[in-house]
Amino acid sequence: MKTLTVDLPGREYDILIQRGLLDRAGEHIRAVCPRARRLFVVTDSTVGPLYSARQVSSLAAAGFETAVAAVPAGEESKNASQLSALWEEMMAFGLTRSDAVVALGGGVVGDLAGFAAATILRGVDFVQIPTTLLSQVDSSVGGKVAVDLDHGKNLAGAFWQPRLVLMDPDTLDTLPDKTFADGMAEVVKYGCIYDRDFFDFLTARPSRGELMDEIEHILYTCCDLKRKVVVEDERDTGARMLLNFGHTVGHAFEKAGNYETWTHGQAVAAGMCVAARLGVELGITPAEVPEQVTAAVAALGLPTRIDCGWNDIVEAIGLDKKSAGSRISFILLEELGRAAAVKMEKETVLRHLEAVYRQM
Amino acid sequence: MKTLTVDLPGREYDILIQRGLLDRAGEHIRAVCPRARRLFVVTDSTVGPLYSARQVSSLAAAGFETAVAAVPAGEESKNASQLSALWEEMMAFGLTRSDAVVALGGGVVGDLAGFAAATILRGVDFVQIPTTLLSQVDSSVGGKVAVDLDHGKNLAGAFWQPRLVLMDPDTLDTLPDKTFADGMAEVVKYGCIYDRDFFDFLTARPSRGELMDEIEHILYTCCDLKRKVVVEDERDTGARMLLNFGHTVGHAFEKAGNYETWTHGQAVAAGMCVAARLGVELGITPAEVPEQVTAAVAALGLPTRIDCGWNDIVEAIGLDKKSAGSRISFILLEELGRAAAVKMEKETVLRHLEAVYRQM
Repeated sequence: MKTLTVDLPGREYDILIQRGLLDRAGEHIRAVCPRARRLFVVTDSTVGPLYSARQVSSLAAAGFETAVAAVPAGEESKNASQLSALWEEMMAFGLTRSDAVVALGGGVVGDLAGFAAATILRGVDFVQIPTTLLSQVDSSVGGKVAVDLDHGKNLAGAFWQPRLVLMDPDTLDTLPDKTFADGMAEVVKYGCIYDRDFFDFLTARPSRGELMDEIEHILYTCCDLKRKVVVEDERDTGARMLLNFGHTVGHAFEKAGNYETWTHGQAVAAGMCVAARLGVELGITPAEVPEQVTAAVAALGLPTRIDCGWNDIVEAIGLDKKSAGSRISFILLEELGRAAAVKMEKETVLRHLEAVYRQM
Repeated sequence: MKTLTVDLPGREYDILIQRGLLDRAGEHIRAVCPRARRLFVVTDSTVGPLYSARQVSSLAAAGFETAVAAVPAGEESKNASQLSALWEEMMAFGLTRSDAVVALGGGVVGDLAGFAAATILRGVDFVQIPTTLLSQVDSSVGGKVAVDLDHGKNLAGAFWQPRLVLMDPDTLDTLPDKTFADGMAEVVKYGCIYDRDFFDFLTARPSRGELMDEIEHILYTCCDLKRKVVVEDERDTGARMLLNFGHTVGHAFEKAGNYETWTHGQAVAAGMCVAARLGVELGITPAEVPEQVTAAVAALGLPTRIDCGWNDIVEAIGLDKKSAGSRISFILLEELGRAAAVKMEKETVLRHLEAVYRQM
């Protein structure tokens, strides 16, 4: 088993990574929640049928009384009315301040259950059991929990650190290839922005099978890289910004496809390819980097470019009248494995971005 | 002007108390939110028509763009659907992480607006302008914000400290006598549990006019007493418990009247009279105290006893099957001006409580 300690002062917690861990969830949760009697498990309609029975029997064996709430799978469940339905179910279950909420599923379940845990009874313990690659490498470190509003994604939420994160790589076996690749986009991102060796390690393993052979190392490395930046910048006011590499333009792609045509990972993958080229155009990124990023993305079956209306990009940069300020921090690669937030006039970014984008 | 600093590490803030302060709100908020462009003001249908126009012109004079949302007056507005409506309105207004939410009103407005501030964009600055006596002495110190659920009051919420609290005692002039007395119940409670001299100061001023002559001192003293305990016990795990004097039985009274027959202050007033007698019965409270408490309560026009079903009290003590554990911490007076949380078997509390209650 690999163990990683996220050393936030006063709210330190462990991430445990091991195949088959799902069956030992109960004992690990008992170790961090010694006084809890009840666990309220939030899952979704895809993950629940696959794993919640095993999960619950492991929790029962550790002496927990459990209730399971399964929300419909998909981003649409991450809303205010699901949140308040969970609040009521938690109280009907008899949850107290010494009990805990468990998220069993991907990012949507983690964000929704985490926000419910942060707010029910003004905050109870929270345990994350992420079951998708994306949620394992991305949303299980950082403490950001939220629901979407009509006005946009993740607009209402909190910072709420888990007491424990359990990752069982076996849960990845049931993911469709597309969903696996989706998570790999964020994995490759960590290599691009923080760690050249890790980037090379990944590109030397172009198949899903080869990657799965090393999955514990991959999960550990991503979480460790994210841990460092989160500990430095818990409330997301500076260093965490680098994690947005590929995301500014990526958001434009996601939005242009109405969050349906392209997954988050696909949009970020294409966004990274654009950002690498933009960096070259601006004289910040070495000339050979865009090809390296593009090759890594393509090898995973992810798109290296996405067509969208130019207006979608203008909006994503925030050059429409709603967005205050004339400057933007854009994340660029100073080299493969090192990113920087470069503060520039939005007009400048946009002019160069247009040149790059038209050529792709 | 009286100024009190609530010295929570890293989230220190001031409480300013002065007649006419409402007209200078803008400049004081500007001092603590130098970068804010927009203020989202939450008020209710009673307070809004009285004060929001004056408020907004003071904010505008300090260069703030403002929006005002007025929820219907009353506890029923403190719910999840009002919360999510406020979230959407805040985003429609263009609120950003450097802007702030202002609560202008009583406890309901403060709790609802505070919870919205704690969660919109994962938390923005929050300024409280409490306009009732109860909210000035009680809910504006402590950082507890919440909404009610079907299962009970204040069940979903957060701890979120304000950046600034502004109290204008002139706003108390528009309160009905009953609402003023309601707040005085909590004022007297501070005297009972922490400060005998303050208790005597209050009982020497039996009329509303006499109390209003000293209102700045009264507000300051209550907030200062609460400040001390909140700084010691921010997350409400120990010392804050004493603030529940009169509240255990008070909750039974409130609930028995379906939260309509009796106000919170009336229920707490009668609850304090019961708790004082219970203390004598248990040999903890000196024999003369119940009469002193009862006289103070009666002088304010508050009820010294309330009839309710015995079962309502049994439930409030938590001796029904839903509540875990056989012991309860009951707040009793060791003397007038000093309270203690006494941990006892629920059965014992209930037996003595029955004896006391039947005699009253």
